[in-house]
Amino acid sequence: MFQMRTDLAIEARELYKERNKEEIPGVEVEKEEANEYVITRVKVLDEIGQQKIGKSIGNYITIESPSLKKADQDLKDDISKALARELKALINPNKITKTLIVGLGNRFVTPDALGPKVVDKVFVTRHLFKAYNKTEDETMANVSALAPGVMGLTGIETSEIIKGVVEKTNPDIVIAIDALASRKMERISSTIQISDTGINPGAGVGNKRLGLNKEYLGVPVYAIGIPTVVDAATMVNDTIEMIVSELKKQSTVGSEFYSMLEAMKSEEKYQLIKEVLNPYMANVMVTPKEVDDLINDLSQVIANGLNISIHPGIDLKDVNRYLN
Amino acid sequence: MFQMRTDLAIEARELYKERNKEEIPGVEVEKEEANEYVITRVKVLDEIGQQKIGKSIGNYITIESPSLKKADQDLKDDISKALARELKALINPNKITKTLIVGLGNRFVTPDALGPKVVDKVFVTRHLFKAYNKTEDETMANVSALAPGVMGLTGIETSEIIKGVVEKTNPDIVIAIDALASRKMERISSTIQISDTGINPGAGVGNKRLGLNKEYLGVPVYAIGIPTVVDAATMVNDTIEMIVSELKKQSTVGSEFYSMLEAMKSEEKYQLIKEVLNPYMANVMVTPKEVDDLINDLSQVIANGLNISIHPGIDLKDVNRYLN
Amino acid sequence: MFQMRTDLAIEARELYKERNKEEIPGVEVEKEEANEYVITRVKVLDEIGQQKIGKSIGNYITIESPSLKKADQDLKDDISKALARELKALINPNKITKTLIVGLGNRFVTPDALGPKVVDKVFVTRHLFKAYNKTEDETMANVSALAPGVMGLTGIETSEIIKGVVEKTNPDIVIAIDALASRKMERISSTIQISDTGINPGAGVGNKRLGLNKEYLGVPVYAIGIPTVVDAATMVNDTIEMIVSELKKQSTVGSEFYSMLEAMKSEEKYQLIKEVLNPYMANVMVTPKEVDDLINDLSQVIANGLNISIHPGIDLKDVNRYLN
Amino acid sequence: MFQMRTDLAIEARELYKERNKEEIPGVEVEKEEANEYVITRVKVLDEIGQQKIGKSIGNYITIESPSLKKADQDLKDDISKALARELKALINPNKITKTLIVGLGNRFVTPDALGPKVVDKVFVTRHLFKAYNKTEDETMANVSALAPGVMGLTGIETSEIIKGVVEKTNPDIVIAIDALASRKMERISSTIQISDTGINPGAGVGNKRLGLNKEYLGVPVYAIGIPTVVDAATMVNDTIEMIVSELKKQSTVGSEFYSMLEAMKSEEKYQLIKEVLNPYMANVMVTPKEVDDLINDLSQVIANGLNISIHPGIDLKDVNRYLN
Repeated sequence: MFQMRTDLAIEARELYKERNKEEIPGVEVEKEEANEYVITRVKVLDEIGQQKIGKSIGNYITIESPSLKKADQDLKDDISKALARELKALINPNKITKTLIVGLGNRFVTPDALGPKVVDKVFVTRHLFKAYNKTEDETMANVSALAPGVMGLTGIETSEIIKGVVEKTNPDIVIAIDALASRKMERISSTIQISDTGINPGAGVGNKRLGLNKEYLGVPVYAIGIPTVVDAATMVNDTIEMIVSELKKQSTVGSEFYSMLEAMKSEEKYQLIKEVLNPYMANVMVTPKEVDDLINDLSQVIANGLNISIHPGIDLKDVNRYLN
Repeated sequence: MFQMRTDLAIEARELYKERNKEEIPGVEVEKEEANEYVITRVKVLDEIGQQKIGKSIGNYITIESPSLKKADQDLKDDISKALARELKALINPNKITKTLIVGLGNRFVTPDALGPKVVDKVFVTRHLFKAYNKTEDETMANVSALAPGVMGLTGIETSEIIKGVVEKTNPDIVIAIDALASRKMERISSTIQISDTGINPGAGVGNKRLGLNKEYLGVPVYAIGIPTVVDAATMVNDTIEMIVSELKKQSTVGSEFYSMLEAMKSEEKYQLIKEVLNPYMANVMVTPKEVDDLINDLSQVIANGLNISIHPGIDLKDVNRYLN
Repeated sequence: MFQMRTDLAIEARELYKERNKEEIPGVEVEKEEANEYVITRVKVLDEIGQQKIGKSIGNYITIESPSLKKADQDLKDDISKALARELKALINPNKITKTLIVGLGNRFVTPDALGPKVVDKVFVTRHLFKAYNKTEDETMANVSALAPGVMGLTGIETSEIIKGVVEKTNPDIVIAIDALASRKMERISSTIQISDTGINPGAGVGNKRLGLNKEYLGVPVYAIGIPTVVDAATMVNDTIEMIVSELKKQSTVGSEFYSMLEAMKSEEKYQLIKEVLNPYMANVMVTPKEVDDLINDLSQVIANGLNISIHPGIDLKDVNRYLN
Repeated sequence: MFQMRTDLAIEARELYKERNKEEIPGVEVEKEEANEYVITRVKVLDEIGQQKIGKSIGNYITIESPSLKKADQDLKDDISKALARELKALINPNKITKTLIVGLGNRFVTPDALGPKVVDKVFVTRHLFKAYNKTEDETMANVSALAPGVMGLTGIETSEIIKGVVEKTNPDIVIAIDALASRKMERISSTIQISDTGINPGAGVGNKRLGLNKEYLGVPVYAIGIPTVVDAATMVNDTIEMIVSELKKQSTVGSEFYSMLEAMKSEEKYQLIKEVLNPYMANVMVTPKEVDDLINDLSQVIANGLNISIHPGIDLKDVNRYLN
């Protein structure tokens, strides 16, 4: 079966359209354009849609803002607010909703550290509710947060750790933050995906084989992700296609190679590249030079979005107050 | 009741002897001197001992090496081996013993980061046993590791997280690593305490109120700790006593102040200092300037000790191999 | 001679007044109170003042804001603006002033990392002026920045490195940022000192023996510092005085000890404490638990203040733009 | 002119041979095979050689060890010793040689942090020689070290900073450490290049436009580098060639495309790929996932090599002693 090499529903849809020259049956798409960003809502309606797009039934919301990379504080705040709005619409939390925020990924591999860094920045309150023996509050909701680390460092599947903690702490919902892989370099650090389907095997930069979803955890799982790396084979693949079309313009020979490539199914083509690359490219990542700064900025954007959407009486202004 | 302000059994015993001019009933002490370190084994035998020393019934082994701070690789290796020997004697593990190593403390407060840094350096295998569906191996034992973070950052009591993970992963034993507080600056970074009583409320630099012990987790809990900070009030208290004895030598007045101090019960004296200090000293720590380097070195010493004591077929030489 | 154990002119003055029950001759003091902070301007006018206060002739401006530690973004911005105003008044730069910003201290010892972290955050332009071959610009001034490291790590005195760079790059002024030692825990992270006298031997947390001043560098040197540690002996000393006055209220004996302490000159007393402490306290620092966060916040406050005071066409709003 | 896209003389030579099917005139090559590594000594003899290979006249020694990536302590020590031997042969230092070690690159961009991290680990002594007013010593040589940072962060060209420091501190030689770019992923972190020609414009991952060589600094400059990244265009280029030869075996069409590619001069081909990639790939790096660990290990290997080659009375054993 064709192994989808993107974590973004929006890209899975693009791939499908490229190959089949049609919109995906069983999938609904809606666009909303703002000044500095575009929101795309992909809804996978049924089995057919799920099978075609290779993503579970549910909602996938993408906030795209090419200038997010080099954003000033205002744009960052706008994106945090947009994220908060979309999140609220999906979850619609009330002031007694108990939330567990999970930061997936490896703190020590910069492009994979998004999740842990968000966890470092969210405002946790569960221990205060316990200390003061409260069940609700006008401004604060009950929030806990955990960055369990990756299996290679713990020897335990991330999902097992989360499930253990969920059973002990009984949150109403789980929100998982993860770094994603995109097939387009231009999407790196400029796209946020929100979904209500949790995280499913193989997703993300790191390795999480058990699902982190309602089936396994027993409570609804929402996922927030930002692409931080591009798969090397994908990059080469995309480049070749661009080169060929370049060549096409210039030489007649190119067109033959092009038609040959046309002839190959894209999965074959991708597999060929993968085979060729693997021996000397295993474990390589393609990522922006300034990835360290990007991860810091973006984790703050997401943390702020979470803080203002989950806590009933908090806005961006307060966030600074509380977190400092 | 007098609140014991040290995590080290060896210091609790000193305090008792200072105050009562006698050895503690119900407590057995044994010393072993090596070239570069001294091992003291404090055994709390019964209720009386427990009540007098303020530590649960069980074994407390201290490895002291004043030169550990500025140790060369050889001494570090010797200490790792001594640690491994003592640990094996306490645990006596076999090759099917499943171990969960827990790094307590806050990764972002340097003197409290010992536990998390040890976890970063131990050799975990549980996922490999699962992947290859094995239950035993000649060289490797089944080991997992977790650094759950502190309640202030997660909103969850550390012990709850551990219990959740223990219930999901069923280890046979838990080994908890923690940074400790000492009452003597000279013990900072030169003393390792091993015990088979787990970690009890209030211990450690951070805040862990629920016990991390067999009662709560249902499996034996061993603890390894190194003092990395001194409580400011303790330091002032100790200094005053030194000053006074200085003054005694010099002036007659000093002696009166001394007798007055004598007259005060040490807990009163300590409380007085604490009151005086608190308003402007809350959350202060007294720690060595080079604490960052010390924590890195010592976490390696402990991690190596763990790696060679838990895994049946591994020695220090291999440790480098496996970990690189 | 009495060795002044503070880097803050404002504290040197307090010490003098405590001991001599009078204002310092040859020193002018002016106070300005704002909502959230107090500005004190200490002007050392002549040789007498210099000798009495133990600080070179010149201006020492202190911005104190007890709530700075846990400030929200608004207060931080206010402090950055106040810093910028005071700095402009001292320097009065024009758009062709070339500035070299120097971050003193050890990046790897958290409380000493203030200077290097400010350098990481200031907006440098010198290379752009060279690249576009410009001598002036409406918005930007010509700024370079360097964190030379400490002598223990480079083998070179910081001042020698700076002088070498000054001779190669010919700045009009140098601004040095450094972490300071205070004698009062309450001043840690709540006080900013600005001076036009540069940095003189022995100042700061680290070890810088050559002066970093106009005499040595040949251009005016301004210094910005924030206290991040308290000297342990100082702390004990201050505590004892507080304890004694406590005891005085309670017992009659205390008063005798008090009169004895009175009898000792404070330098003797301090020396006694120092002797008593040293054997087991060498290289100890007393610092807040959350020092890592504090240093990050404060370095941003200072960097913002520098960015808006040095660059003619930039305000706080732009700072975010440019730096992201 | 064809822009050579590798920092390694050994690769420049490969490229030449690939294109011209002959050894480079004016260039001498010598190989030495050990158990775990291969040493290749490329000597550029004259103007012709220099022009053909695109590297200045001088010696370029490469130590290659594919297993260095995952080396145990023994192999690392062997490589440090080999590095020390080659370095001594080039420099032949005596005990009064004064050395300045310079760590080039950006501490905050992991794959570019090799130089600064080596500087953190070398044993500096210049300040001790000054303090004790000595000019020579049996065990120690006079060593200083500096990590000046990159122009984007300082506003000053690295070479200007170094020259300023050289003029102030008068070392006899400078040794510059830098991260390099390779054209082969398999060389990343497995190759060390040593040269006596200093660092010339454009070399390295960062941006250093002025030469760091004897012409500019006035003293001999040695360079030690390890490739840590691959240029994305290079990777695509290499991959295409591999794909084409794959296709050749499978289809006849491939061969046509191949002959077309053959027809293009490699520089044209490379430029085409570069054009195609740039719009969406500017500032991308291709680097191993575990780059953080690799940089830490390799900086230790180089630092140890430097410590034992420069200091007359020190061996690897002592290194641990002195540095801890």
